[in-house]
Amino acid sequence: MNESIFILKGNIVYSKNTKELEIHPHSYLVCEGEVVKGVYEMLPSKFEGVPVIDYGDCLIIPGLTDLHVHAPQYTFRGLGMDMELLEWLETNTFPEEAKYKKLEYAREAYGIFVKNLKSGATTRACVFATVHRDATLFLMDELEKSGLVTYVGKVNMDRNCPDYLREPSAEVSGLETVEWIKDVLHKKYKNTMPILTPRFTPSCTDELMENLKKIQLYYQIPVQSHLSENPGEIDWVKELCPWSEFYGEAYDRFGLFGADCKTVMAHCVYSGEDEIARMKENGVFIAHCPESNMNLSSGIAPVRKFLEKGLKVGLGSDVAGGSTENLFAAMYHAIQASKLRWRLKDESLKPLTAEEVFYMATKGGGEFFGRTGSFEEGYEFDAVVLDDRRLEHPQELDVKARLERMIYLADEREVCAKYIRGKEIKLV
Amino acid sequence: MNESIFILKGNIVYSKNTKELEIHPHSYLVCEGEVVKGVYEMLPSKFEGVPVIDYGDCLIIPGLTDLHVHAPQYTFRGLGMDMELLEWLETNTFPEEAKYKKLEYAREAYGIFVKNLKSGATTRACVFATVHRDATLFLMDELEKSGLVTYVGKVNMDRNCPDYLREPSAEVSGLETVEWIKDVLHKKYKNTMPILTPRFTPSCTDELMENLKKIQLYYQIPVQSHLSENPGEIDWVKELCPWSEFYGEAYDRFGLFGADCKTVMAHCVYSGEDEIARMKENGVFIAHCPESNMNLSSGIAPVRKFLEKGLKVGLGSDVAGGSTENLFAAMYHAIQASKLRWRLKDESLKPLTAEEVFYMATKGGGEFFGRTGSFEEGYEFDAVVLDDRRLEHPQELDVKARLERMIYLADEREVCAKYIRGKEIKLV
Repeated sequence: MNESIFILKGNIVYSKNTKELEIHPHSYLVCEGEVVKGVYEMLPSKFEGVPVIDYGDCLIIPGLTDLHVHAPQYTFRGLGMDMELLEWLETNTFPEEAKYKKLEYAREAYGIFVKNLKSGATTRACVFATVHRDATLFLMDELEKSGLVTYVGKVNMDRNCPDYLREPSAEVSGLETVEWIKDVLHKKYKNTMPILTPRFTPSCTDELMENLKKIQLYYQIPVQSHLSENPGEIDWVKELCPWSEFYGEAYDRFGLFGADCKTVMAHCVYSGEDEIARMKENGVFIAHCPESNMNLSSGIAPVRKFLEKGLKVGLGSDVAGGSTENLFAAMYHAIQASKLRWRLKDESLKPLTAEEVFYMATKGGGEFFGRTGSFEEGYEFDAVVLDDRRLEHPQELDVKARLERMIYLADEREVCAKYIRGKEIKLV
Repeated sequence: MNESIFILKGNIVYSKNTKELEIHPHSYLVCEGEVVKGVYEMLPSKFEGVPVIDYGDCLIIPGLTDLHVHAPQYTFRGLGMDMELLEWLETNTFPEEAKYKKLEYAREAYGIFVKNLKSGATTRACVFATVHRDATLFLMDELEKSGLVTYVGKVNMDRNCPDYLREPSAEVSGLETVEWIKDVLHKKYKNTMPILTPRFTPSCTDELMENLKKIQLYYQIPVQSHLSENPGEIDWVKELCPWSEFYGEAYDRFGLFGADCKTVMAHCVYSGEDEIARMKENGVFIAHCPESNMNLSSGIAPVRKFLEKGLKVGLGSDVAGGSTENLFAAMYHAIQASKLRWRLKDESLKPLTAEEVFYMATKGGGEFFGRTGSFEEGYEFDAVVLDDRRLEHPQELDVKARLERMIYLADEREVCAKYIRGKEIKLV
C-alpha cells in the first residue's frame, strides 16, 4: 500500500457545479499523494489498512480560495470606511502601503496577516503586496512557511500616486519586477508563485503595461488587477484611455487580459455587455468582492449574469476594502448584495443561492489554481474540517443546513484542521 | 462616602448626539447607585478613596440596545435564507415557534439564546417570544437571572397562521395575555418587563387589536410590532385594512402606535411621508434591522431621512431574519446598506456614518428604556468593556479608530466585562 495515502472521515460537502451540493454524511475522503482519490459512503475493501482520521460529526469541505486580497491593507481592516475608492486610496491606502518600504514594519504587519489567514478556512489566495521588492519577498517567505498556496504580486505603479510610493519610471518598474521574479525563482518555493500586478489602469502608464507584457511572455506568469469597480475610477480610465471602448480594453490592448495569459480581475461591478463578452472570450477570472463593493459605496456586481453566461467567477475578501479575510463572510455578503440588487435595481437577475456562493468560494475561484476546490477525483487535496459545536442548537440539523449555517456564522473558531495538497498544515 | 459608588478607568467613548463621539482616553467613569455620575479625564478630589477598577487600555462604551429580536428564532439563525418574508414565516418560522408549546424544548432553546445574548455587548433588548405563556415566562425567568434589562412579549396572533400556532379567538388571545401579565407582575422581576406584541397586522384581527388596547390602557405597558417591512406584506395589509391610508394606520386606529403608549416598530423599509410624519407625531421608535432586510430581500430603510426628521431610531438584530445577535454587526450592516441605497436608489440620502450607527445602537435605541445608552450624567449605568487585543495591528491607533474597528470586527470575544444598572453581570 502506498505510504502517501490516507483517509479523512466526516460529513463531506463539496460542489461539482453551481446548482447543487454533493453531500455525503459520515463518509470517507481518500487522499493519495497530493490529490483526491475519491469520496465513499462505504469504504471499498481496496483501502483496507489505510489510516483513517476520524473527525466524528465535523463537516469536511474543500479549502476556500480568496481570489483578491491586499496583504498590506490588513493593518487597517475595518477602518476609514467613510470614503469612495479614489479618496480612500489617497487617504488610507497609499500612506499605509508606503510603510512597507521598511522591512521591519513589513515583518510585523505581514506576520499578523499570514498568521490570521492560516488559521481560517482559506487554503489559496491571490495576494497584492506593495511596490517594494524586499517586503514582497518577505511576505512570500512567510506564506511559503504557512503551507498556504498563493500567487503574490509586487505591485506596479508609475503614475497618479504620491511621490513617496510611485516608481520613478516604467523602465524602473519593469526592471524591479524582473529582479523580483528572479529572486522568487531563486527561492524555489513549492507553494508560492509570482503574479504580475499592475495596480490598475490609472496608476500604470502605457509603457509600463508594455513592459509587463514582455515580462509576462518571457516568464509565463499570470496577471491580477482591478476592473470596473467604481464610477469615479471608470470615468478616469475613460479619460486616460480615450481609445478604449470599455475599461477591460485598457488591459486587453496590452495583452494583459486573459487569452494567452491567465488573468484575474477584481470587482467588475460595472462591466457591460462588451466587457463581459471579452472576459468570456479571453477566459478572464472575476474576483467578486461584495463586502468591499459595499464599504466603498461602489455598487453590486451582476454576478447572476456572469454565472448565466458561463464566466469564471470566484470570491475575494478584498481586505481592506473588505473588513475581514473570512471567506464565509464573503459568501453571505455575496448573497445579501445579490438580494439587494434584485430588489433595488434589476428584478431580472435572481439573488444568488447558498449553493452558488459556496461553489464560487471553492471550485469557482479554485480553478485559477488548476484542479482545486472540489473533491472530485484528481483534484488537489485541499480540505478544511469544521467543528460547528460552538454554535449550539436544540433541534436536529442535516448536513446541508449545517453548511448553510457556516456561511452566515462560521469564522476561524470553527476550523479545526486544514489540509493543503495532501498535507495537514498547522493552524496556529 | 456612599458605598454604592465605584469608578471604571479606561478609554471612554459614548454619544451625546448623532454627529460626533465623546472620546476620553484613559479617563474615569463614575457610577453612583445605578446611574452615571460623570466622566473625568482627571479624577476630582471628591472621589478620593472610591474604588477604581482599572481596565488599562480597554475601551469602555455604553451597553448596546437590541430593539428587535425574536428569541425562539435563535435556533435557526443563518438558516433558510432563500425566501422572502411571508414564505419564510410559513416555512421556517411558524413550524419552529410551534415547538415552544413544549416547555422542555423552550428550556433548551431559550437557554442557548440567553447565554449568548449575555456574553455579548447587548445590555437591553426588546424581545419577541411565542404565543405560549409558559415558555414566555420561562424565557423571562432566564433573562431576569442574566442581569440583562429586557421587554419581553408573548406574541398575539389569531388569524392567517397555521392552526397549530393560531390562538383560537381574539377573546382567548386577550385573556391569555392578561393571565400572562398577571403572572409576570406576580414574579416581581427587577429587570424584565412585559410588552404587548401583536405579531403584525396580517396575524391580528381588529377585535384582537381592540382587546390589546384595553389591556394596554389598564396595565400601561408598551407595544412592539412590525411595520412596512416587505412589499408582499404591505400589499396584504392594504387588502386586510382597505380603510388604512398607510400600514401604520392599521395600528394607530386601535391606539397601538405611540401617542399614549410607548411603541417600537421594526423595519419601516417602505414607510412613506405620511407614515413617517405619523411616527414622528406619535413618538414611535423605529427598530432598523438592516441585516434582516437584506436576508429577506426586503430592501433598505431610509434611515438618513428618519434621522433628519428627528425620529427615534435604534438598531435591531431581528434574529433570525438577521443571523446574529451581535449588534456590532447590525452597526456595520446599517452603514453598508445605507451606502448601497445611496448608490442604487437615492443619492439624496447620504450614507450613514460610524458615529450615527453607534448612536443608534446606544443612545438611540436606549431611549426606549429611558435614560439609557449614554454616559451623560444621570443616565443608567450600562457599560461594556472591550479588550481589542485579539485584533492585532502594527501601527498606532487612536481611540476613535479603535472604536470604528470594533464596529466591523468585534464580537463577544472582545467583551471582557459588562455592567448593567451599576452592577457587574457575569458574561458566562
